[in-house]
Amino acid sequence: MNEPASFHMPPEDFRRFGHAVVDWIADYQQRVAALPVTPRVRPGEIRAALPPSPPEHGEPFDAMLADVDRLILPGVMHWQSPNFFGYFPANTSGPAILGDLLSSGLGVQGMLWSTSPACTELETHMLDWLADMTALPAQFKSTSAGGGVIQDSASSAVLCALLAARERATQFQTNRSGADGRLVAYTSPHAHSSVEKAMGIAGLGRDNLRLVAVDEGFAMRPDELARQIAADRAAGRGPCLVSATIGTTSSNAMDPLPAIGRVCREHGVWLHVDGAMSGTAALCPEFRWIQEGLEFADSYAFNPHKWMFTNFDCDCFYVADRAALIRTLSILPEYLKNQATQSGAVFDYRDWQVPLGRRFRALKLWFVIRHYGVEGLRHHLREHVRLAQEFAKWVQAEARFELVVPPPLNLVCFRFRGDDACNERLLERLNASGRVCLTHTKLNDRYVLRLCVGQTHTKEHHVRAAWDLIRAVAESLD
Amino acid sequence: MNEPASFHMPPEDFRRFGHAVVDWIADYQQRVAALPVTPRVRPGEIRAALPPSPPEHGEPFDAMLADVDRLILPGVMHWQSPNFFGYFPANTSGPAILGDLLSSGLGVQGMLWSTSPACTELETHMLDWLADMTALPAQFKSTSAGGGVIQDSASSAVLCALLAARERATQFQTNRSGADGRLVAYTSPHAHSSVEKAMGIAGLGRDNLRLVAVDEGFAMRPDELARQIAADRAAGRGPCLVSATIGTTSSNAMDPLPAIGRVCREHGVWLHVDGAMSGTAALCPEFRWIQEGLEFADSYAFNPHKWMFTNFDCDCFYVADRAALIRTLSILPEYLKNQATQSGAVFDYRDWQVPLGRRFRALKLWFVIRHYGVEGLRHHLREHVRLAQEFAKWVQAEARFELVVPPPLNLVCFRFRGDDACNERLLERLNASGRVCLTHTKLNDRYVLRLCVGQTHTKEHHVRAAWDLIRAVAESLD
Repeated sequence: MNEPASFHMPPEDFRRFGHAVVDWIADYQQRVAALPVTPRVRPGEIRAALPPSPPEHGEPFDAMLADVDRLILPGVMHWQSPNFFGYFPANTSGPAILGDLLSSGLGVQGMLWSTSPACTELETHMLDWLADMTALPAQFKSTSAGGGVIQDSASSAVLCALLAARERATQFQTNRSGADGRLVAYTSPHAHSSVEKAMGIAGLGRDNLRLVAVDEGFAMRPDELARQIAADRAAGRGPCLVSATIGTTSSNAMDPLPAIGRVCREHGVWLHVDGAMSGTAALCPEFRWIQEGLEFADSYAFNPHKWMFTNFDCDCFYVADRAALIRTLSILPEYLKNQATQSGAVFDYRDWQVPLGRRFRALKLWFVIRHYGVEGLRHHLREHVRLAQEFAKWVQAEARFELVVPPPLNLVCFRFRGDDACNERLLERLNASGRVCLTHTKLNDRYVLRLCVGQTHTKEHHVRAAWDLIRAVAESLD
Repeated sequence: MNEPASFHMPPEDFRRFGHAVVDWIADYQQRVAALPVTPRVRPGEIRAALPPSPPEHGEPFDAMLADVDRLILPGVMHWQSPNFFGYFPANTSGPAILGDLLSSGLGVQGMLWSTSPACTELETHMLDWLADMTALPAQFKSTSAGGGVIQDSASSAVLCALLAARERATQFQTNRSGADGRLVAYTSPHAHSSVEKAMGIAGLGRDNLRLVAVDEGFAMRPDELARQIAADRAAGRGPCLVSATIGTTSSNAMDPLPAIGRVCREHGVWLHVDGAMSGTAALCPEFRWIQEGLEFADSYAFNPHKWMFTNFDCDCFYVADRAALIRTLSILPEYLKNQATQSGAVFDYRDWQVPLGRRFRALKLWFVIRHYGVEGLRHHLREHVRLAQEFAKWVQAEARFELVVPPPLNLVCFRFRGDDACNERLLERLNASGRVCLTHTKLNDRYVLRLCVGQTHTKEHHVRAAWDLIRAVAESLD
């Protein structure tokens, strides 16, 4: 056969370059602790180093890999550094990276069961495994009327929950006729910003999100929730969703699910629970108290891509009534009709999410769970929590510092005994040192530093070094 | 230092197993043509072969990789087979897989410029490169008031376009107060189902999507569009968005952008253009006619993850007025505040999309563009179009077959001269053979077969073999 020229990468090159990239990553994992965690680049600096025009002719792979070192690496924040304590972790691991690599190689689309049955069935199976591993209430397993699906993020999960709640509250008429401004939803001022964003997206209006007052530990007050719902009902509004958080972003506060759940049940309001980072802790029996009351929830999300050694993106989203979710999001054009769908015997996950297309993300979860086993995952989570608790003790033992709230798990909120400007300067200098990355929040209008232990390779000496640095920098402040 | 036990994959194991996975993919690419394209599994069959419970203890990597062969592979549709002609392609390539692997290894979060400046700046730069490569109108480049961002899919792109259009039409009040059922949008009955889905999600209501009549080539009729918009205005409704398609899913019909664009401009309606698969063709000057009139558009999307050898997910979404998009989707909680954002000198891409988190997807685009060069990409696109056009000629030359519409690019709609049941049976038998995958649609209420040429390694002999098989199976039908 006389084939025309090809510009594709020949299999032998793919092997060679692929091995080189794998080795690059292994090297990166070994050297990342020594790199400045936070990049020091000015806006536009990376772009200015890139060629203004795309290449007309192909370039050698080695040049591309060298440019990653030369142009890209100085411009990234090293989320995989063991000295990374900022935001929430986005921890990765060998088995996750390789499971994801296989997904890239297979390149299948999982939008329908029929477009790759294994993609859908492994996903359902992994979500059921995780439900067992974290002792989720039975309503979230696929063997009940509910089930789980992988979303890209907890933001998308809360959006899907809100949409299903919106539809349930309006007998599925909003989807058809549009919103009418009557529905309201509830969360705490410490909930993730994605709840407010979802209100805007869903056409319900950000102003119709009630921020329910919190207690002194920054957890939602169920009595206040009940009061607001009753007031809204009396005013002719339609309460449709409460979004509670187990582990708020700012301070890891735990909303009291049992009391909130009872209020929701009494008023027929959809309860969504966001356990984005902290939900993973429920792998360990001693941390399962965070899930108490989850049996009241209509939906629940937690992110293995934060704290379970699984590459982004991987949010596990569970619903108790999958029919409500599917009815909200399903659509069936002719070109997607097929026998399996029509038989009703399969899940078509495109009906559980906003986008149509989806990659084979269950592979990386499968690899992570099998590589670590339940005991391995538990071991490392316990160690992260232990280190954060140690850190909190060090803070408490030092008169110049203040522990702002008792840390329930792996996130410590603390401040230097000085004004906000002083704490802000402390954080700036810490991050400018390149030796750690911490971030901040505000609690009771005071500037607070956050240290979150969760990167895959963070060990005691990294936390100890961070603390030594914090004390030293604090001492040097004018 | 006395470190506790670790269950993490040691770097040396990561190298070894990583090389094995790379080799597995290289082998897969070499053997995939011989595998049955469409899996033959019953619902539940894959799950039944998986252990009901997760492992308590870790398992060896080799066992996991062997299980991919044993349990997963028989259950996937081989989208990367050169004999795959179904739906739209989701073609991958060596450089894309390796760019994505690097992204997994780096594991950075690109939600803000400051959380990894290189992630944001390379993305902006690649989107500008692609704008140049496909000769997009100037309003879509980041150097204007617009710019581009990577979304997961064209579904999410049209949702974001609709949200921004909704806000622009209501002076950004819907986001605050909720929708009021007054807004309407327009598309053709042949547009992708994601437009209707987006109407439901955005709280505008699926019933408020007008399906504008099409001409005999299944393209939207601008006169009908103008008539409907005028009628809606007269009835006090608020026309907010027209979603036009260049290359509909069913038949690759091209909506006439110049005329549609003039109608939109006259009425102040946001024009979104969906070029999901076909937009990539504009890399070749001779196919740029499909973009004629794109200068009228407020937003535009095309998917390198379909036809540009770039792994899912990678939809390029461009807006002419980025301020409108950002104002619609931005949110700024305390814990995400930072100097770069406050300076206004950077893009924070979380404000250009629904989710907060985002992976470093520009790396794979960078690798693909640099590996192939513009000439390499053009070469393979031209070859795909040539093969589809050849196939169409073969269909036309055969009296028993009918070409349903002239194929503009790489998608051919055809049918066997018989009733719908006969064509349905033909498709079933073709796919059951394992030797090809084709899909179907309905045009003018008739069942039509679709053959789309776009998989990375599809060559003339694969298309020829598909045609031989189609004729043979057709002949064997009772």
